[in-house]
Amino acid sequence: MSARAPLRPRAHYRAWRQIPTRWADNDVYGHVNNVVHYAWFDTAVNAWLVEAGLLDIHAGAIIGLVVETGCRYAASLAFPQMVEAGIAVARLGTSSVTWHVGLFAEGASDAAAEGHFVHVYVDRATRRPVPLPAPWRAALGSLAPSAG
Amino acid sequence: MSARAPLRPRAHYRAWRQIPTRWADNDVYGHVNNVVHYAWFDTAVNAWLVEAGLLDIHAGAIIGLVVETGCRYAASLAFPQMVEAGIAVARLGTSSVTWHVGLFAEGASDAAAEGHFVHVYVDRATRRPVPLPAPWRAALGSLAPSAG
Amino acid sequence: MSARAPLRPRAHYRAWRQIPTRWADNDVYGHVNNVVHYAWFDTAVNAWLVEAGLLDIHAGAIIGLVVETGCRYAASLAFPQMVEAGIAVARLGTSSVTWHVGLFAEGASDAAAEGHFVHVYVDRATRRPVPLPAPWRAALGSLAPSAG
Amino acid sequence: MSARAPLRPRAHYRAWRQIPTRWADNDVYGHVNNVVHYAWFDTAVNAWLVEAGLLDIHAGAIIGLVVETGCRYAASLAFPQMVEAGIAVARLGTSSVTWHVGLFAEGASDAAAEGHFVHVYVDRATRRPVPLPAPWRAALGSLAPSAG
Repeated sequence: MSARAPLRPRAHYRAWRQIPTRWADNDVYGHVNNVVHYAWFDTAVNAWLVEAGLLDIHAGAIIGLVVETGCRYAASLAFPQMVEAGIAVARLGTSSVTWHVGLFAEGASDAAAEGHFVHVYVDRATRRPVPLPAPWRAALGSLAPSAG
Repeated sequence: MSARAPLRPRAHYRAWRQIPTRWADNDVYGHVNNVVHYAWFDTAVNAWLVEAGLLDIHAGAIIGLVVETGCRYAASLAFPQMVEAGIAVARLGTSSVTWHVGLFAEGASDAAAEGHFVHVYVDRATRRPVPLPAPWRAALGSLAPSAG
Repeated sequence: MSARAPLRPRAHYRAWRQIPTRWADNDVYGHVNNVVHYAWFDTAVNAWLVEAGLLDIHAGAIIGLVVETGCRYAASLAFPQMVEAGIAVARLGTSSVTWHVGLFAEGASDAAAEGHFVHVYVDRATRRPVPLPAPWRAALGSLAPSAG
Repeated sequence: MSARAPLRPRAHYRAWRQIPTRWADNDVYGHVNNVVHYAWFDTAVNAWLVEAGLLDIHAGAIIGLVVETGCRYAASLAFPQMVEAGIAVARLGTSSVTWHVGLFAEGASDAAAEGHFVHVYVDRATRRPVPLPAPWRAALGSLAPSAG
């Protein structure tokens, strides 16, 4: 199992979260199923947004809808490994954000997988895009990938 | 929630499977979570492979590993809707296959989402790529997208 | 894998739903993971409630919270099998309902697993129990298990 | 949402594991879905077995099959909370083990939910029950619930 171009290095990412694997993450082939990586992307990004005081899942005026996602897989992961998820904001638009997420086996230098997903931030009630408020822009700006 | 380019039409796809949504497919925002679409891709493609007599999940010599996936989302789906998944083989390599999957609300003319994923077929034991056997090539060739 | 007492027969159940297995239902041991059965219970019961016009997931005044669940497993199921889920209302209280769910491989006479779960119906906003309205009582009463 | 009898206290449990919630653990009602608790039971117990050097998921001679599970729910949990799972061995039979699992919000004195599940340990190939080997008996015996 090999991807064509090298995956992004750890230095690309600006915030980290540990995600322990679960029994059901493994599929019948004995490794973490390709779908699970996306569940980790959602978890890493939304937990960061909640903990930064930006996203209020239950009552906030703004929620993020996903319009595009993708992932490349370079190495297997398996329960009961610990996974480290790095996140970065690759593009910050008026109401949309392109997130990069890298997944690494604990302590590994090379990524096991990397993905992106595009969030459009919308009004909870109307589900129409809204310009990101200033506190969101400032916080998300702090996650721009390292140069070089 | 809108994607930039129109999604592929129903006519693109060559085999279909009905996938009823489940309670847990809905996330806290009340629609099917973006991750679930990938679980449906796995289901639609692998069920077809099993039913075509190609894939033996438990004992076959060849299994498919996923090296790349992606999805664009154009409209929400929600439990308890029925979803129709269309599949096609967009590219048939020596040991790799690029699948297209389109997800449609039952009876809808426009896709709610579309994805691709790249399977590399490998030897179950060594996990090294193997050339697709002739029966696989013939069957997968029958899923080439319609021209036009 | 054997359970101690025989599982309930098909005749016990009053409404049925077909649930196709999905790729990710299988765990690393090659059969449907024990957790998945509960996802099917939720799906079978809530889909029936929605289709009976009782439950409005997004805006209804009443929602069902789960206070107790259980399952006994007698035989394995595996993707890509079709599963038939039978449901019955074993006990109808003032604001609580004990559901029985039986899971059968398509066409099988004996259950692969059977479970129960206890729903307490509450006001969506306050999350306090509410007496089941008359239309709910009538509809749920029609699902009492067959005598004998 | 209230259970009838008090749930077991923290002192009942003999080994602990932290399980961070994930985005998809929340269902449409905004709290962790009742099914997810069972995924955590599997995770807490099997991770302990692997880390104790007893269970080899991929190649061991003995695997655990689940024949019965149950859970009572007393309080909601929600992403992005951290959950603490306590485990204990309530009954150690010849080839079967009854596990107790308690789920607590991080730092909470009262359990949010508690469950049990019965594992029958079987030969991987024949899937017939096998007497638990001495190292298993010794290790599992160390997880007997505290008296009092």
